[in-house]
Amino acid sequence: MIGIAGGSGSGKTTFTGKIQSRLSTDISVLHMDSYYLTSLPASVYTKSGKPNFDHPEAFDWPLLKLHLKTLKSGKAVDSPIYDFKHNSRTAETTRIEPSKVVLFEGIFSLFDIEIRELLEIMCFLHVDADIRFTRRLHRDVQERGRSMDSVIAQYYETVRPMYMKFLDPQKQYADFIVGEETDIAASILSAKINELLQVTDQVSLDSLGLSRTPLEQQEDLRGP
Amino acid sequence: MIGIAGGSGSGKTTFTGKIQSRLSTDISVLHMDSYYLTSLPASVYTKSGKPNFDHPEAFDWPLLKLHLKTLKSGKAVDSPIYDFKHNSRTAETTRIEPSKVVLFEGIFSLFDIEIRELLEIMCFLHVDADIRFTRRLHRDVQERGRSMDSVIAQYYETVRPMYMKFLDPQKQYADFIVGEETDIAASILSAKINELLQVTDQVSLDSLGLSRTPLEQQEDLRGP
Repeated sequence: MIGIAGGSGSGKTTFTGKIQSRLSTDISVLHMDSYYLTSLPASVYTKSGKPNFDHPEAFDWPLLKLHLKTLKSGKAVDSPIYDFKHNSRTAETTRIEPSKVVLFEGIFSLFDIEIRELLEIMCFLHVDADIRFTRRLHRDVQERGRSMDSVIAQYYETVRPMYMKFLDPQKQYADFIVGEETDIAASILSAKINELLQVTDQVSLDSLGLSRTPLEQQEDLRGP
Repeated sequence: MIGIAGGSGSGKTTFTGKIQSRLSTDISVLHMDSYYLTSLPASVYTKSGKPNFDHPEAFDWPLLKLHLKTLKSGKAVDSPIYDFKHNSRTAETTRIEPSKVVLFEGIFSLFDIEIRELLEIMCFLHVDADIRFTRRLHRDVQERGRSMDSVIAQYYETVRPMYMKFLDPQKQYADFIVGEETDIAASILSAKINELLQVTDQVSLDSLGLSRTPLEQQEDLRGP
């Protein structure tokens, strides 16, 4: 199970696509933005009453953890579908079949310690703030018909402070950080995934070089 | 050809060793600190007359580039041996045999554009300054018999300013950055190297997923 984190506009979807295109077989991919809560708690609204979709409490963590654990145990899940136009979960779901390798991508994929303990590989996409902003501006204005001023206001009100407070600190948990150019990193990570997929017998993760020092025994800066 | 950069105390040697231990066959490893100049230019001495071994001009770049190009063309090189006690190159050399995969590790392995163009994979080890300092302090006091005060003085006079000016900026060229915990990153990079070693026919690097956008065409922040 591989976690891929990074801000909005850091290229998580592109990176995930590059990895999938290099693999010898299909794998399971879980998208964190399917797990937004339909009813956001009051703490997640800004002072001006706008929903803060960059806040960790905007997500349905219990369902997300259940689905990650279910996939890890080798069973399929019915992942929710979130409607970003009406800000609510739809009645439909997407069946995600289990696989030897599960990619889990999202802005807070390395945020929760219970989830980190499920992840054998943790990756963070670092892209400078100006590039992330201009990508988001382009997407929201061109594709979603929003005004430039509203995108800028949202950036200062929620996107930027949430990135600094909650998103960026996830770097400390990452096994590796990837920058703007992701081709080589995708190629390297894909080689590891293909190696994992080729293992047909049941072997321990240790023998695959994916055991790590238990979080609580690490001497480094990984926080609680 | 894979470049591994990082400050003194960032764990380059340990990381290189972890990679080698996971490979199915021997590869070539070139260490940049074999290429210190015997006669350092005046610009490389500090105001108080001490040699600055963290300055790019302390290295024999022409010989280093020649050896990297020779290894890349599939021929052996006789790498110099530097005597750190007497600060000079010895009369002996080490034969480094060519290999399909060459690891090049050193504090400035991503510094020079001609060398970057030889590297298919570029990696930077990021370790926080306090950890790098305490490792260096421990090594220099315990293993090299130096005084604590001289290590601290050298840190402020050369190590720290050179890191900020010349070493840290190499991150912008890295395909991925690895932090304090390197086991998983070593496992992933080794999987890629094993994949490369298993390719028996002559194939293009493109088909191995190691082509990148030419440096001059990149839209990102990679500097000249």
